[in-house]
Amino acid sequence: MNNKYLLDHLRSVPDFPIPGINFRDVTTLFKDPECIRIMAEEMYEYYKDKGITKVVGIESRGFIMGAILAQRLGAGLVLCRKPGKLPAETVSQEFSKEYGTDVIEIHKDSITEDDVVLIHDDLLATGGTIKAAWDLCRKFNPKKCYMNFIIEIRDEGLQGREFIGNDIDIMTLLRV
Amino acid sequence: MNNKYLLDHLRSVPDFPIPGINFRDVTTLFKDPECIRIMAEEMYEYYKDKGITKVVGIESRGFIMGAILAQRLGAGLVLCRKPGKLPAETVSQEFSKEYGTDVIEIHKDSITEDDVVLIHDDLLATGGTIKAAWDLCRKFNPKKCYMNFIIEIRDEGLQGREFIGNDIDIMTLLRV
Repeated sequence: MNNKYLLDHLRSVPDFPIPGINFRDVTTLFKDPECIRIMAEEMYEYYKDKGITKVVGIESRGFIMGAILAQRLGAGLVLCRKPGKLPAETVSQEFSKEYGTDVIEIHKDSITEDDVVLIHDDLLATGGTIKAAWDLCRKFNPKKCYMNFIIEIRDEGLQGREFIGNDIDIMTLLRV
Repeated sequence: MNNKYLLDHLRSVPDFPIPGINFRDVTTLFKDPECIRIMAEEMYEYYKDKGITKVVGIESRGFIMGAILAQRLGAGLVLCRKPGKLPAETVSQEFSKEYGTDVIEIHKDSITEDDVVLIHDDLLATGGTIKAAWDLCRKFNPKKCYMNFIIEIRDEGLQGREFIGNDIDIMTLLRV
């Protein structure tokens, strides 16, 4: 946990996207080949024997390590997107945000009951989106779901892990 | 060119996103592990000896094979995004669309003069966005740029390759 090389390459951008938020910028990890290698290796080692058949990447930074993980694990990559982005028939999930509600979707033919699913996003903050993604995946009744992030943010009182609950195995590379 | 397994797994969705457009849906390639393996292998074979140090992925489906290619080639991944999505200081490029203009950005510290750049997106249609991405990359004066797509769309009178011109090496897996 908390590989020093990754931590040293993580950038914090104050007041983004709004004043008061200290944004953890993973693009500085993505642009460094050694960071990509370390992230891919640590995630692969954790999941290699878990029989993952589908990786669900959350739009849009979750597509990045989601794709690399899918390729390394020999799994398929399923895109979880905002409404109107996926061209074929979708299944959707509504969820509450601080102000109002939001919706995410995946293609109806993307997960089956035979799948073991790994849901991936770059950051775990409040956990709202990823919890909705998990609810959405469960509508397909897959064998099992796992959840994975590059960074779990604990400062500023964030308790994403507690919001998600204990019914799913959550693995994160960095905790800040 | 035109691997039959990939072609057989490519879905066409009529009238998306607007009536009259026959949309090539690459999500059916991404969800299939063998399609990912073939795409990664064919792209890796083409670029493995070209000294690529940065892969530029175009938001957001271009992040997917962009990330896999970066990992396979031992290069960094740079995100090319719409305005307001990248948290740190950016360089931007405006370009013309059918109605009005659009802008894309990359982080100012993401490419150097020592880089050999591979620009990747999933689809080549009119070529407008990718040409702007190339113009944007050239502002950093890298050693060389390459360009790569999963699918080059030639029907409906599209001439993306001609729009981009002959000054850059373009590789595509499928031509439809």
